[in-house]
Amino acid sequence: METKPLNRHDSMSNPLVRPANYQALNQPQSNTTGTSQMTHSSSSDDFMNSEANMDPNHQSSGSNGMDSEEQDFAGIGQYDDFHTIDWQRDIARDRMRHRHIIKKKKNSILDWIISGHDAWSGWLCVFLVGLIAGVVAGTIDIGASWMSDLRFGICPEAFWFNKEQCCWSSNETYYDGDNCSNWSTWPKVFINTNVGVGAYIISYILYVMWSLLFASLAASLVMMFAPYACGSGIPEIKTILSGFIIRGYLGKWTLLIKSLGMVLAVSAGLSLGKEGPLVHVSCCIGNILSYLFPKYGKNEAKKREILSAAAAVGVSVAFGAPIGGVLFSLEEASYYFPLKTLWRSFFAALVAAFVLRSINPFGNEHSVLFYVEYNKPWIFIELIPFILLGVIGGIIGSLFIKFNIKWCRYRKTSMLGQYPRLEVLIVTLVTAFIAYPNPYTRLNTSNLIYLLFSQCGASNNDDLCDYQRNFTNVNTAIEIAAAGPGVLKAIWLLALALIFKCVVTVFTFGIKVPCGLFIPSLAIGSIIGRLVGIAMEQLAYNYPEWAVFAGECSTGENCITPGLYAMVGAAAVLGGVTRMTVSLVVIMFELTGGVRYIVPLMAAVMASKWIGDAFGREGIYDAHIILNGYPFLDSKEEFSHTTLAHDVMKPSKNEEFYVMTQDSMTLEDVEQLLRETDYNGFPVVVSKQSQYLVGYVTRRDLTIAICQAKKTTESIVADSVVLFTASVPSPWNGPPPLRLRKILDLAPITITDQTPMETVVDMFRKLGLRQTLVTHNGRLLGLITKKDVLRHIKQLESEDPESVLFN
Amino acid sequence: METKPLNRHDSMSNPLVRPANYQALNQPQSNTTGTSQMTHSSSSDDFMNSEANMDPNHQSSGSNGMDSEEQDFAGIGQYDDFHTIDWQRDIARDRMRHRHIIKKKKNSILDWIISGHDAWSGWLCVFLVGLIAGVVAGTIDIGASWMSDLRFGICPEAFWFNKEQCCWSSNETYYDGDNCSNWSTWPKVFINTNVGVGAYIISYILYVMWSLLFASLAASLVMMFAPYACGSGIPEIKTILSGFIIRGYLGKWTLLIKSLGMVLAVSAGLSLGKEGPLVHVSCCIGNILSYLFPKYGKNEAKKREILSAAAAVGVSVAFGAPIGGVLFSLEEASYYFPLKTLWRSFFAALVAAFVLRSINPFGNEHSVLFYVEYNKPWIFIELIPFILLGVIGGIIGSLFIKFNIKWCRYRKTSMLGQYPRLEVLIVTLVTAFIAYPNPYTRLNTSNLIYLLFSQCGASNNDDLCDYQRNFTNVNTAIEIAAAGPGVLKAIWLLALALIFKCVVTVFTFGIKVPCGLFIPSLAIGSIIGRLVGIAMEQLAYNYPEWAVFAGECSTGENCITPGLYAMVGAAAVLGGVTRMTVSLVVIMFELTGGVRYIVPLMAAVMASKWIGDAFGREGIYDAHIILNGYPFLDSKEEFSHTTLAHDVMKPSKNEEFYVMTQDSMTLEDVEQLLRETDYNGFPVVVSKQSQYLVGYVTRRDLTIAICQAKKTTESIVADSVVLFTASVPSPWNGPPPLRLRKILDLAPITITDQTPMETVVDMFRKLGLRQTLVTHNGRLLGLITKKDVLRHIKQLESEDPESVLFN
Repeated sequence: METKPLNRHDSMSNPLVRPANYQALNQPQSNTTGTSQMTHSSSSDDFMNSEANMDPNHQSSGSNGMDSEEQDFAGIGQYDDFHTIDWQRDIARDRMRHRHIIKKKKNSILDWIISGHDAWSGWLCVFLVGLIAGVVAGTIDIGASWMSDLRFGICPEAFWFNKEQCCWSSNETYYDGDNCSNWSTWPKVFINTNVGVGAYIISYILYVMWSLLFASLAASLVMMFAPYACGSGIPEIKTILSGFIIRGYLGKWTLLIKSLGMVLAVSAGLSLGKEGPLVHVSCCIGNILSYLFPKYGKNEAKKREILSAAAAVGVSVAFGAPIGGVLFSLEEASYYFPLKTLWRSFFAALVAAFVLRSINPFGNEHSVLFYVEYNKPWIFIELIPFILLGVIGGIIGSLFIKFNIKWCRYRKTSMLGQYPRLEVLIVTLVTAFIAYPNPYTRLNTSNLIYLLFSQCGASNNDDLCDYQRNFTNVNTAIEIAAAGPGVLKAIWLLALALIFKCVVTVFTFGIKVPCGLFIPSLAIGSIIGRLVGIAMEQLAYNYPEWAVFAGECSTGENCITPGLYAMVGAAAVLGGVTRMTVSLVVIMFELTGGVRYIVPLMAAVMASKWIGDAFGREGIYDAHIILNGYPFLDSKEEFSHTTLAHDVMKPSKNEEFYVMTQDSMTLEDVEQLLRETDYNGFPVVVSKQSQYLVGYVTRRDLTIAICQAKKTTESIVADSVVLFTASVPSPWNGPPPLRLRKILDLAPITITDQTPMETVVDMFRKLGLRQTLVTHNGRLLGLITKKDVLRHIKQLESEDPESVLFN
Repeated sequence: METKPLNRHDSMSNPLVRPANYQALNQPQSNTTGTSQMTHSSSSDDFMNSEANMDPNHQSSGSNGMDSEEQDFAGIGQYDDFHTIDWQRDIARDRMRHRHIIKKKKNSILDWIISGHDAWSGWLCVFLVGLIAGVVAGTIDIGASWMSDLRFGICPEAFWFNKEQCCWSSNETYYDGDNCSNWSTWPKVFINTNVGVGAYIISYILYVMWSLLFASLAASLVMMFAPYACGSGIPEIKTILSGFIIRGYLGKWTLLIKSLGMVLAVSAGLSLGKEGPLVHVSCCIGNILSYLFPKYGKNEAKKREILSAAAAVGVSVAFGAPIGGVLFSLEEASYYFPLKTLWRSFFAALVAAFVLRSINPFGNEHSVLFYVEYNKPWIFIELIPFILLGVIGGIIGSLFIKFNIKWCRYRKTSMLGQYPRLEVLIVTLVTAFIAYPNPYTRLNTSNLIYLLFSQCGASNNDDLCDYQRNFTNVNTAIEIAAAGPGVLKAIWLLALALIFKCVVTVFTFGIKVPCGLFIPSLAIGSIIGRLVGIAMEQLAYNYPEWAVFAGECSTGENCITPGLYAMVGAAAVLGGVTRMTVSLVVIMFELTGGVRYIVPLMAAVMASKWIGDAFGREGIYDAHIILNGYPFLDSKEEFSHTTLAHDVMKPSKNEEFYVMTQDSMTLEDVEQLLRETDYNGFPVVVSKQSQYLVGYVTRRDLTIAICQAKKTTESIVADSVVLFTASVPSPWNGPPPLRLRKILDLAPITITDQTPMETVVDMFRKLGLRQTLVTHNGRLLGLITKKDVLRHIKQLESEDPESVLFN
């Protein structure tokens, strides 16, 4: 089945220093059998004085041993690029370190301070993440708003002001969003007029030009400095959080270029948002800061606790939704999410939201993106259109995923992939060219969503609010009224905007600029929702006698709020695209401050999720993970097949199984095995005949240990026996053996060959394994790696198992 | 070390029908080695035709096999009372059932409907739980409010009205909470006056009498009908959710009596709340409803998904806080909480909150308990008193836990425990007698909290709001002002109330009536908070020139809201008592609608948690779990010791290890082993000499199988060899063997003796194990049960390992 048998148990897991051995070092007096270890510093010097450093009164022998281990081998606990981490090992390593610090705590004040610092460092780190992410997000928001406005005009008095600030700085009391004498549009700058065909053409050209400039700048920055900065980053974050190494993905260059590129891409008017990339940016900040705290920086499993919190921070600053952020991290992003992380994520998300509110980039007193001021109760019957919106959202979401993945696959396999910058330019050109004539697409997407969410009050004079009613007073209730010609025009423009957004977003998500999906999805959804809402409103206006409307709409007050429909529609489409559930509802409710509308939101999101799942199980992020072949073992998918460990295990029949024996292989045999195979590790057995499992040793440890032994001990020759046993047989013939028990993992996870694969998958997920050894009646039969499991799942689902690329 | 060696591996886990065997039944064509099973129906008839039912073309042979298994042995998948469940087994069983239904789906329309029903039943079940819990909670709220008022008077026109409703029904436009002509206080009923010493004495006596009547009724109901209905129920719910069986704890009698008793106990004016018990009531509803859906009712692991959702529903209806409820279930109550459950819990919690809001028991338009109408921003410097409140809350919480546990332990060991009803009466008498004179304790605790949370507006004429200011208009801002004599008086009364509440709650929590801790904790905290708040307010009034106040307080408007301090203090004390974190903050913020105050709340809760943890790790619920000796493996506690599986494993040195061999024991040997030991299961090995592990068999399965074999097959005699092997050795001498491989669990979880205990504990927690087998180089050395792990942890923490009572 497997074409490259040499690439079979390609795992590099299981540590040079495994807790079992540490424990023997720390507890020399314990009479555990077979753990009379050498400390590492005396490792391969001489097998006669193996107990030399084991004096139980030598208080810090264990710690010395540990320190020297860490010094001896640089890169311990590190992994190669594109490899899976071993959660159990890393967490055990951290507990070991923690115990060590606790033990030393009472020795001196310095140790006490170190211990205190250690206990606090997690909190400190997430605090800093929240703080810095808040500042960065605020800066990005301000920058994007300024550059977006730059496409339309400039503030001559202070070019660094955006339109809103520019108009504030003037003394005009009336500012309706379009006119303000301080702000100069480009035609005004060039031909000193705002009206006429000439002005329109100049506006149009400059709009397109600026867009192209920003987009090409963004693409160039990404291409030149940080290729990882493109896309939304959430699929990769999910994969990284599930225990995978992608070096540089969360580095400082990615942070810098993604932040810059995001501002540029958003300002270019492309159909993308900065919310997804903000999660990536937060995770970059988390990753970079974690190196300030070796506890996290040097331990991949612990680092993921910080990254989980950082993901929560990302959503928190993206939407001003701290609770939603935590739930997003829990539901969507994270893999290993202990309660401690929940609490820390919440703290960090709050800090970030607080900082962002203090910066106040949206210039209002609410820290949320789309604050809605209406507060009307919804009618029970409205659940029907809400659920309908959910259904539409689910369908659109599924179609979007399908087309987007098809296009991305085409990009990967065709010539197109070789001209990413050209692709960006074409997409930008088309977007800008089509977007400008339609006022709703010309608008910044966030503003469009805000407009669609809002209700038609006295101060709102958009076409959308052209109803046949008069406001006598700002505070009076809004009456239900017939739609005017403006509304009809707006409907047509919105329908065109909808089609445009749907099509262009498919081609935009995946181009080589930082781009998120949240905002375009919300925009598409809110257009649909608003249209349905207006329809419902006019229905209620024209047929107030219908039983369903009679109760609420008889007073003449407006009983249907089209803005609410926009909100529900937005949630539905976003739900259909991402398949988020609780976190989405909570984000929407925090995003809009609409506590009352949690039930409609949930109804729509639920419908959307179900309909979407019926068309295809994966959300857009999972689909991209699969597209890229990352080894992501989804904890949401249930393994529903009936295969046994025996069926999945490698080697399969007729293949040779490479193992080591504990006391009968010479150094030459071992080196030959290392040369001839490229497995990342080898099980060690009692003898080739019996195949009784003793432990597991990794290639990396073996190579390092042999290399060191050769260097330091002259008596080690090719004929030296490599011994993994606890003691040397007492009449020993031949050259002194090379004793390597200390690098042996004595506690590998094993299962029997009859274990159902569902249990095996469960163990991989919950224990974070890299591989497990398969035994039958105590004898070793083979092993299963995470890659084997993933390929097996693919195979059962009739997909290409070779699409799983990494282990 | 162990005094009763016979009680060692007392586990009854591992199923009669283990998935591995199921799979062999369902996939007869699969060529897995060594699984040529008999179907169960042909079990011990004849070892020659063991393949009889294995015809691969007989489409539903697997299912027949399964059905017959289920029919043959009643109670399969059930557990004995006070035993731990086997999560892996139950979940595997459910997946098996699910696969079976999916497979049959296309056979007929009926099967299609069954499959549809199966897919929906989870949602339907949690929907019903939410619906019914909402109705029950609404009824309880209404009942409690009516009975509470009954202690003060009656509505002559309609005795079933509570005071508020009674006063509404009158046409008086002015109703200030104390006076209303429709409502008759008891002195008015008897001596037709409301004032004077006589009236006061009559009120006092009737208050005490009603309290005693309600309390004794509650205690009697609990004692007579449902002893499990006492207490808060949350410790037991936590234990049950972690995978423990307590029969009847979630039964219909408990539901009924707890609901009734709760109303009575709250109305008796005892220092207890109905919020904790509502979680218990919801779980009862969840448990009862789960029996409507065999998928959940017959599978303990799946049932816990419903119960997790029910716990969320409980908090949702208790506080009107659906998101907080879900987080409570996630953080505090649940053990196994897959994302699917998160989503369902959220749905159920929303349904419940929606139903409750429709019933509207609080008679206001907000569905939350303590809606606060203030919206003033807090000053940064206020974080200092907030954190101070957190510290106080942590200390009070820890002290409360310490004293309460001491008292509960005393009750358990002394004569007191034998007179529970007397204890209830004494506590009630003392509570009522002391509570009446003080207006703040006389008040319903919820109303007290509401009063303390609220700000002193124009309409509030309590002593607490006796400030030297005049309200000219309801809408003007509240000025900062000097406290009047009423405030001083209120401070003294509140201080007395604080001491009283603190003392009496210690003695109340644990008496034999349903009683929760949330409300008393909130009350204690809000008193402290209000006192600190008033102090801060007067400080700001008297020293407005201080730099810290200068910025905000210089306008003359009130910059300090004492009600906010009450809110923060309440959260702090509740945090100190329960050690909840995120869920508590979210509950408080939903409870009060105070979105702005999430940062102060978090600061206080964090301080409270840290201070509390410094005094003692456990929250009140965990402390009660430990007190009762439940086998609860806390997933929040980190195992920080360095022991190995070898140190914990049973048998320890010099003890005999009882195992079975796969092909050399006669029926007599086996029956002798069963007679002489009382282990719940036995490992099966290749031979006594080699000790290579084959599988694991439970006592229960063995007994049933032998019993059946004897009944159905005459050729089985005492000398028959019990065979666990796949095939019978071909020249067979002696009587036909008894073949029992089908009851053998071929995939027991094994570890090596060198596995660190932290990994073992992790495996127990994450995989939900009951026991694991310990091997060394393939040989079986012993086993570790959950009880062994718990006792080991106790031992390492220098506690009494015998306090772990159950497995």
